[in-house]
Amino acid sequence: MRHHSAFVAVTTACVAAGVAVVAAGVAFGQADRFYPSRWGADDQRGAANRITPAKVLEARNLITRGAVYELGRTYEAGMPLFGTRHFSLRIPQTYGPMGANRTMYHDEVVSAEIGQVGTQFDGLGHIGVGDLFYNGHDRADFSRGDGLIKLGVENVGALTTRGVLVDVAAFKGLDVLGDRYEITRADVTGALERQRTEIRAGDVVLVHTGWGSLWLADNARFGGSAPGIGLDAAQYLVEREVVLVGSDTWATEVVPNPDPELQFPVHQLLIPRNGIYIFENLATEALARERVYEFAFFYAPLKLKGATGSPGNPIAIR
Amino acid sequence: MRHHSAFVAVTTACVAAGVAVVAAGVAFGQADRFYPSRWGADDQRGAANRITPAKVLEARNLITRGAVYELGRTYEAGMPLFGTRHFSLRIPQTYGPMGANRTMYHDEVVSAEIGQVGTQFDGLGHIGVGDLFYNGHDRADFSRGDGLIKLGVENVGALTTRGVLVDVAAFKGLDVLGDRYEITRADVTGALERQRTEIRAGDVVLVHTGWGSLWLADNARFGGSAPGIGLDAAQYLVEREVVLVGSDTWATEVVPNPDPELQFPVHQLLIPRNGIYIFENLATEALARERVYEFAFFYAPLKLKGATGSPGNPIAIR
Amino acid sequence: MRHHSAFVAVTTACVAAGVAVVAAGVAFGQADRFYPSRWGADDQRGAANRITPAKVLEARNLITRGAVYELGRTYEAGMPLFGTRHFSLRIPQTYGPMGANRTMYHDEVVSAEIGQVGTQFDGLGHIGVGDLFYNGHDRADFSRGDGLIKLGVENVGALTTRGVLVDVAAFKGLDVLGDRYEITRADVTGALERQRTEIRAGDVVLVHTGWGSLWLADNARFGGSAPGIGLDAAQYLVEREVVLVGSDTWATEVVPNPDPELQFPVHQLLIPRNGIYIFENLATEALARERVYEFAFFYAPLKLKGATGSPGNPIAIR
Amino acid sequence: MRHHSAFVAVTTACVAAGVAVVAAGVAFGQADRFYPSRWGADDQRGAANRITPAKVLEARNLITRGAVYELGRTYEAGMPLFGTRHFSLRIPQTYGPMGANRTMYHDEVVSAEIGQVGTQFDGLGHIGVGDLFYNGHDRADFSRGDGLIKLGVENVGALTTRGVLVDVAAFKGLDVLGDRYEITRADVTGALERQRTEIRAGDVVLVHTGWGSLWLADNARFGGSAPGIGLDAAQYLVEREVVLVGSDTWATEVVPNPDPELQFPVHQLLIPRNGIYIFENLATEALARERVYEFAFFYAPLKLKGATGSPGNPIAIR
Repeated sequence: MRHHSAFVAVTTACVAAGVAVVAAGVAFGQADRFYPSRWGADDQRGAANRITPAKVLEARNLITRGAVYELGRTYEAGMPLFGTRHFSLRIPQTYGPMGANRTMYHDEVVSAEIGQVGTQFDGLGHIGVGDLFYNGHDRADFSRGDGLIKLGVENVGALTTRGVLVDVAAFKGLDVLGDRYEITRADVTGALERQRTEIRAGDVVLVHTGWGSLWLADNARFGGSAPGIGLDAAQYLVEREVVLVGSDTWATEVVPNPDPELQFPVHQLLIPRNGIYIFENLATEALARERVYEFAFFYAPLKLKGATGSPGNPIAIR
Repeated sequence: MRHHSAFVAVTTACVAAGVAVVAAGVAFGQADRFYPSRWGADDQRGAANRITPAKVLEARNLITRGAVYELGRTYEAGMPLFGTRHFSLRIPQTYGPMGANRTMYHDEVVSAEIGQVGTQFDGLGHIGVGDLFYNGHDRADFSRGDGLIKLGVENVGALTTRGVLVDVAAFKGLDVLGDRYEITRADVTGALERQRTEIRAGDVVLVHTGWGSLWLADNARFGGSAPGIGLDAAQYLVEREVVLVGSDTWATEVVPNPDPELQFPVHQLLIPRNGIYIFENLATEALARERVYEFAFFYAPLKLKGATGSPGNPIAIR
Repeated sequence: MRHHSAFVAVTTACVAAGVAVVAAGVAFGQADRFYPSRWGADDQRGAANRITPAKVLEARNLITRGAVYELGRTYEAGMPLFGTRHFSLRIPQTYGPMGANRTMYHDEVVSAEIGQVGTQFDGLGHIGVGDLFYNGHDRADFSRGDGLIKLGVENVGALTTRGVLVDVAAFKGLDVLGDRYEITRADVTGALERQRTEIRAGDVVLVHTGWGSLWLADNARFGGSAPGIGLDAAQYLVEREVVLVGSDTWATEVVPNPDPELQFPVHQLLIPRNGIYIFENLATEALARERVYEFAFFYAPLKLKGATGSPGNPIAIR
Repeated sequence: MRHHSAFVAVTTACVAAGVAVVAAGVAFGQADRFYPSRWGADDQRGAANRITPAKVLEARNLITRGAVYELGRTYEAGMPLFGTRHFSLRIPQTYGPMGANRTMYHDEVVSAEIGQVGTQFDGLGHIGVGDLFYNGHDRADFSRGDGLIKLGVENVGALTTRGVLVDVAAFKGLDVLGDRYEITRADVTGALERQRTEIRAGDVVLVHTGWGSLWLADNARFGGSAPGIGLDAAQYLVEREVVLVGSDTWATEVVPNPDPELQFPVHQLLIPRNGIYIFENLATEALARERVYEFAFFYAPLKLKGATGSPGNPIAIR
């Protein structure tokens, strides 16, 4: 196993670090057996199972003013993109008019990593622990060139539940958290306390970092790193039994991780290990500005068969 | 004007037909001046302006059970497509694992007329009367190769309002309306009476025809024609001041139109002339089966800059 | 090895079949070691190495009339496609004119499996024996989501050499070979004898089956099976030390293979085992009609970095 | 006519400039009637008609050493792109192995303005004078969303003729011509004299500027402007009755034009007005380095139905 010595080093580092050891211990210990899921060995929906009619009604009861917030950013040429991903939209030539009523029409042709550019929802087929994904599915068994045959985003269903904004930037007294800032468990609980908000099982949790203010304004800095939750903060959200964690950064988690041996460990902790979804590049600024810390959250991924993620424009309502 | 004689013929036919004359008279008369819009000459949102906080609260009050219905179909190879449109989804090769925690990831690359395949929302830039679109915008002024610079779907915003299902198939005592069946004003009002439902200003109206049962089951018949609302039924919905008309067919309106001179006249009546949106290929069957005729409707188009439409997975909640 | 019992069965079948045993013996024996290549362990160009300045001059000397034949088919909507592959070409909206000279321009946006639709050249990264490709390269070492890092088609270079058409249809006295007809070694040598043509080391060999007459005329039959060379005919071409084998079918080899245990074994024999390229869906009919059995052949794959194949419009000149 | 005053200004400027007046006079005079073409009002091949069997034999006779030069650059992520054009290549997941012979395969999915990125051949449907293109075809009559119905690149056919390299950089004693340097008629004739090369009717002419050395090395400078031929040099090539003009820059012509009123006037002079093709981003450096000023040129555009251009990897042989 080529990473053997790295494992030892990491485990040691985690023990020394203290904070990260719980999650990292799960990740690297001999008993790293994160499946079957708590929703059964055949489940493909993960934490979406936490959304019950009672949660829908809990969301409903938060709607008192009829104020609606769009949380999706605009998909456009020039937006920050990860690696060599692309987004192309073209309006083809029009021909017409048709009929005595002279109908003309436009459509558009789009090519993109459409589930993984801009505002993006990460499904259970997106991230694995080695070749093992959520519920222990092996890539060899479900990953196909024309779509995943298990864990596709079409299985998720509607996510309509109570939403909570955790404004960590405000808690730290900043407009924008610093580059590479790791949000800790204490930051999350401190921010919640400041806001007088609690997280409940089945909630969607959105973390406001202020990093979204760099979107289109400083793409190089925006994509070069990201403040975000670390392993311990993520573990806290796992314990709270949330459905989804989102934020206004491209990764939701801190990148690079403070532990240089780890690559996107929070993605792993949330998605394959706990079936919890991630939503990136959300427009959380209006919620933060208006101190909307509790809201009804509505989102249903596009039913893209066999996709790993989905674009979206989720809605928060008060 | 090369269609001049056709116009005369059509107008005559419409007078003879009686029913269509109201809408067609608007369409073809000398006073065919459908702009500026009632929301002002600069408006780009059309009937979305009808959604007020009061409508949001009206929707909220319909949520009593917490039952959620996804109204989007699955986007997949093999689904019916209009003309030469395409839908391609591929999962690229994976490389890894990365880091001591052995992260692997999948993403997807999609190419498609993404706003005009499968479940699709038609925005105000989709349909024109000759070169004139909603609010009189001339194609020459806003249609560009890399996106519309006016009337793009990113302007629509969230559509969260009361929804009504009009089950015309049930009203006619059929599972599926016949090929090319034109739904009349009387069919709509009759179905509403049968259901004891009313349509109110600011509502979203979905018409159930049963045609969706042919989806993937008989694509050739599904796409070869479509039952749907005719001009007079559409005019009724215009008068009811709705926000959006959707259905379980690929056109919402009857295709071909009974008047052979007309091409997609209902699209024209709704979109450019009245700023009312259309939503096609919706999965209305569960609502019909469970007789959910009134519901809270939630949808926000993807903010695809300069796009004519958007894919979607709208939600109905009771 | 999960195919173990199948291997035994196949080997037995091959021995019984006699003809196939040479190639199949190579394929399934214990000593199945097809690498390093004869051009060295680091080679990425395969049989393209056979093209020397002397071969170029040999091709040149075949040009006596200045008659040019395009061998590529038109890429268009409606052409036969393998599986769920697609081809989409759109002309975006135009904006202008620009400048006092009123320049207008069109371009096009294409999405396709561009190296593997229509007339298509198969490179060394296209086909493997399990995970091992040409020169023993393991997929894990060179296959990446955004392009192969070894064996990409950009390494091939120009293929400018003597070309030979083998008109097997004419040899069999047919316009079109039958569905699933396996061209044998004797068919190839017989056709060559009839034509009084010889194959020399470093040649490109194109096999005319007449199957191309079904292109766009009967796509379902065209793609449902294919006449083509079998393993023994392919082995003959390997022995002749050719550079490339092409034809007017979508596979060049017979499909399905007469041995139901084998999937595209000729692709394997030629590409990974011998570094010989395949060119599919060529327009060979003009050459056959005019009995142009020897010609100068010119083709250079598009230098698509990391691609497995290339589209093309190769040229034959007499 | 909104550009009226600009026309007057430009015409005046051209008269003052002297050199540009011949071409510009053609462009802007009252008698601006560039059609029908000299090859008839129905012709769609333009200067490709100049390639006769005699020209093919003339090319053949230049092949004396069997030395082959690829003139195409590699298509890859990171190459310079014009405006918002894109190039995406992905290798999908592989599934297998198939059959007892354990066949595996890769293919690739590409999305790009494939005829107008990287090494690119400009066809007759690419550039117009206002809405009028080669042979007076009006955009309204042939420009369609899913491909041009006239002037598509599939009509061009093989371009196999004598090729000439004009090394203007060497003539000026430079490795790379300066930014925005306009190559004059005297530069072309001087370079030809220095090389002792002549241009003949039916030739392909490639202009070496050295600008290609910036490809991938300094994309911002490469695409920010370009040295290239001006109107008078282009007019010289028109008079020489060439088939195609190519170079190692992205525009072949000088950009911006020294006359600030003009936008890509050389494209207009060559393509719609004279049916002469343009080939951009060619790898001319090996020809220049080895002083290969005369050669056999081989290229056939991909037969992309209704496309404005084609990618390519043309070949020069000595």
